Amino acid sequence: MKRLTPSDAMFLYGESREQMFHVASMMPFTPPPDAKPDHLRDLMNEVRSGVMQVQKPWNLKLKSPDFIYNPLQAWVEADHIDLEYHLRRSALPSPGDERELGILVSRLHGYHVDFHRPPWEVHLIEGLEGGRFALYVKVHHSLVDGFSAMRILANALSKDPKDRDRPLFFAIPPPARPPKQEEQAVSQYAAVMAAVREQYGAAKVATRALKRVFDSARSGMHEFVTPRQAPKSILNSRISQSRRFATQRLELERIKAIARAGGGTLNDVVLALSAGSLRSYLLEQNALPDQPLIAMCPDAVRAKDDVGGGNSVGAILASLGTHIEDPAERFHEIVASTRHAKEQMQGMSKAAIIQYSALLIAPSLLQMVPATAGHVKPTFNVVISNVPGPEDALYFRGARLEASYPMSIPVHGQALNITCMTYAGMMCFGFTGCRDTLPHLQRLAVYCGDALVDLERVLL
Amino acid sequence: MKRLTPSDAMFLYGESREQMFHVASMMPFTPPPDAKPDHLRDLMNEVRSGVMQVQKPWNLKLKSPDFIYNPLQAWVEADHIDLEYHLRRSALPSPGDERELGILVSRLHGYHVDFHRPPWEVHLIEGLEGGRFALYVKVHHSLVDGFSAMRILANALSKDPKDRDRPLFFAIPPPARPPKQEEQAVSQYAAVMAAVREQYGAAKVATRALKRVFDSARSGMHEFVTPRQAPKSILNSRISQSRRFATQRLELERIKAIARAGGGTLNDVVLALSAGSLRSYLLEQNALPDQPLIAMCPDAVRAKDDVGGGNSVGAILASLGTHIEDPAERFHEIVASTRHAKEQMQGMSKAAIIQYSALLIAPSLLQMVPATAGHVKPTFNVVISNVPGPEDALYFRGARLEASYPMSIPVHGQALNITCMTYAGMMCFGFTGCRDTLPHLQRLAVYCGDALVDLERVLL
Repeated sequence: MKRLTPSDAMFLYGESREQMFHVASMMPFTPPPDAKPDHLRDLMNEVRSGVMQVQKPWNLKLKSPDFIYNPLQAWVEADHIDLEYHLRRSALPSPGDERELGILVSRLHGYHVDFHRPPWEVHLIEGLEGGRFALYVKVHHSLVDGFSAMRILANALSKDPKDRDRPLFFAIPPPARPPKQEEQAVSQYAAVMAAVREQYGAAKVATRALKRVFDSARSGMHEFVTPRQAPKSILNSRISQSRRFATQRLELERIKAIARAGGGTLNDVVLALSAGSLRSYLLEQNALPDQPLIAMCPDAVRAKDDVGGGNSVGAILASLGTHIEDPAERFHEIVASTRHAKEQMQGMSKAAIIQYSALLIAPSLLQMVPATAGHVKPTFNVVISNVPGPEDALYFRGARLEASYPMSIPVHGQALNITCMTYAGMMCFGFTGCRDTLPHLQRLAVYCGDALVDLERVLL
Repeated sequence: MKRLTPSDAMFLYGESREQMFHVASMMPFTPPPDAKPDHLRDLMNEVRSGVMQVQKPWNLKLKSPDFIYNPLQAWVEADHIDLEYHLRRSALPSPGDERELGILVSRLHGYHVDFHRPPWEVHLIEGLEGGRFALYVKVHHSLVDGFSAMRILANALSKDPKDRDRPLFFAIPPPARPPKQEEQAVSQYAAVMAAVREQYGAAKVATRALKRVFDSARSGMHEFVTPRQAPKSILNSRISQSRRFATQRLELERIKAIARAGGGTLNDVVLALSAGSLRSYLLEQNALPDQPLIAMCPDAVRAKDDVGGGNSVGAILASLGTHIEDPAERFHEIVASTRHAKEQMQGMSKAAIIQYSALLIAPSLLQMVPATAGHVKPTFNVVISNVPGPEDALYFRGARLEASYPMSIPVHGQALNITCMTYAGMMCFGFTGCRDTLPHLQRLAVYCGDALVDLERVLL
């Protein structure tokens, strides 16, 4: 039995028909040239029958699924795991294009997990154009956070197209000694949330930093975003239980070229692409606020004592400059905003950064309480995460992973989430939103591509 | 605005992650010989674009979807109906056989409706073997009861294969003057439930009949089933949120031949087929009770003042004789049991029958209260409905309806529902159950077919 941590529990307690705290990954694959017509059916049979044991944490279920808010809620090992439930086959209606794939995974993402079982599902989706297929893998955030889930998924794939025996992620034993510190670090948003409650008063360094934030705001350093600056927008409405998911895949080299030319980081370009996309989308909806939208970036900063390994720990708030029409000017506004935000954290340790970030985003917790959601002024308008992924091409029993799109969690007051992940020379964007709050959400993906062309036009 | 009736409200208030009060119909079709390869896509586009107006009640949604238990809950007209949400395309993975169709509709039936919208969905499922397709149509019982829904669906199909313009059910205006009495009569189970609360004391005739029930029980007339006789069984456990659905289709002529030979009614044969199936299934699960299982049949009796039209109003409890090995003996036990049950109702009016039936099944309401479900001794073990359907072959824009399988509502304490419907010379059985309480539920469908062969062997 394993008692839930406060941050894991938060993702449970917030769960409702509308707010579902599962994350997912949408992964299209190109099968190997020697694939037989029935290879997907064989593949699923092989995967199901090859599972000797479902490994931790994938064999854990809630101790009190009928009383989710039980303060003594814990994870216990499931006696029996119904693999046909967890491993599913689906298919796309004709013509099996990206649009149909988007519709199906949006639908799957809008259904809640079953807390009477280990809260994860794998869907093998056939019928994609050109004999291709996709995996949709869903995990509840209370079991595994999104970043860890993506890393675990990637680890279960192979760099070798000839490797045809590798088991799927849930059948791979966990490392003998879990890298405890790293495990904690990767779940920034959760850690940040937990820190709000756990360490409010004890954080002298962070409090001092927060004081600097307000001081600089008073002294007119407007590039540095302080809480309470975010404008109201349709992004910060209540959500329904339906989802829309849209994707965009851009070459990493093009993004790096912009970063170099504009004097910003890779993450600054991600913010700029999101900003360009949001500006076009909101203009079209006649809903662009006069003030710039504020993004919360959970992964933007590395701590002074970070031993490396790609895990960052601080959340920053950054202006997206969406009030600025000129793409170059907008980009410079973003670069200035993130630079100032990061400077505030210089010299802070990892723990202090978490606490500091927690203080910055604390008011946003209120947004998730159903009664206040959509009414409280937002602390930030949108969460934009940028997660480093695998550099090499990966294979699932000979089938090449084409891209890896993260699907995240809209909540009341945060109807859109943008998460992107690098993979094999590409930046894969996932736009996860509420179907009803954000009509035609797929246009965000299209405009994100347009935004790169715009930046290239003015900066290169 | 239309206030919910008490019985409609009951189907809302009982709704939870596990108990979902929607009914559905699963309808496979054979396309016309001249169908083009893309005809299903065209069909959906045509259906979506051809909808001028969504008609009542299909345009109604809950007034307070965020507070479902609102005592002033009501239906209001939806401002906007997102047809892409309500009309969906799906596809079967290979080989697209009946098994894959069963898996998909089981899955769809395990997802709740969205109460922020009119609570219905139509799924057009392609990829069925031989270029065939299926419709899965889901409606929440609080909006339209199952029997009415099936009738409305059938009315929206055509007897003429050349009729290619008929709109789907939700676009057909309701009849100018709704046949009020009939509307009330068709929803027996709901009416029965409502009557329990509304008319408990005022029913002299029914109370007298109930006294006869207990008197006859005391005098040793064991064929007549009284409340509190049903044995405990796995059918009366708590349910999970997952469903399994299985179907069987039998020629009506074969069933009628058994009825004639054995001196019973069509409904008696339906009970006998269910009984034979349940006996085999429970023996295999090592879970057959020593005492006979008791079926609740909501549709078994016609009232004295019934004007005709096929609507019956009384629920009876009948022994299924599952303790008897010999199929002929078992059938005779069932015939005797239903005959005695019906005799109790002779001379009663429709209203009195409803009240009487309500008194008989009242204890079963307790089963639906989560805390008692699966603990209280069941009043009956399984609901078996037998619904008269259309006699002629029907067409949906030239595609022939092959069969029409009703999907019903398992609840805590009633993990299985058997509903069958006649259509074009066939009896179509739908077994809807909880996936976890009743493993390998599809075997019930197979054993139902075997049971007919057994009866033919001993009776013809």
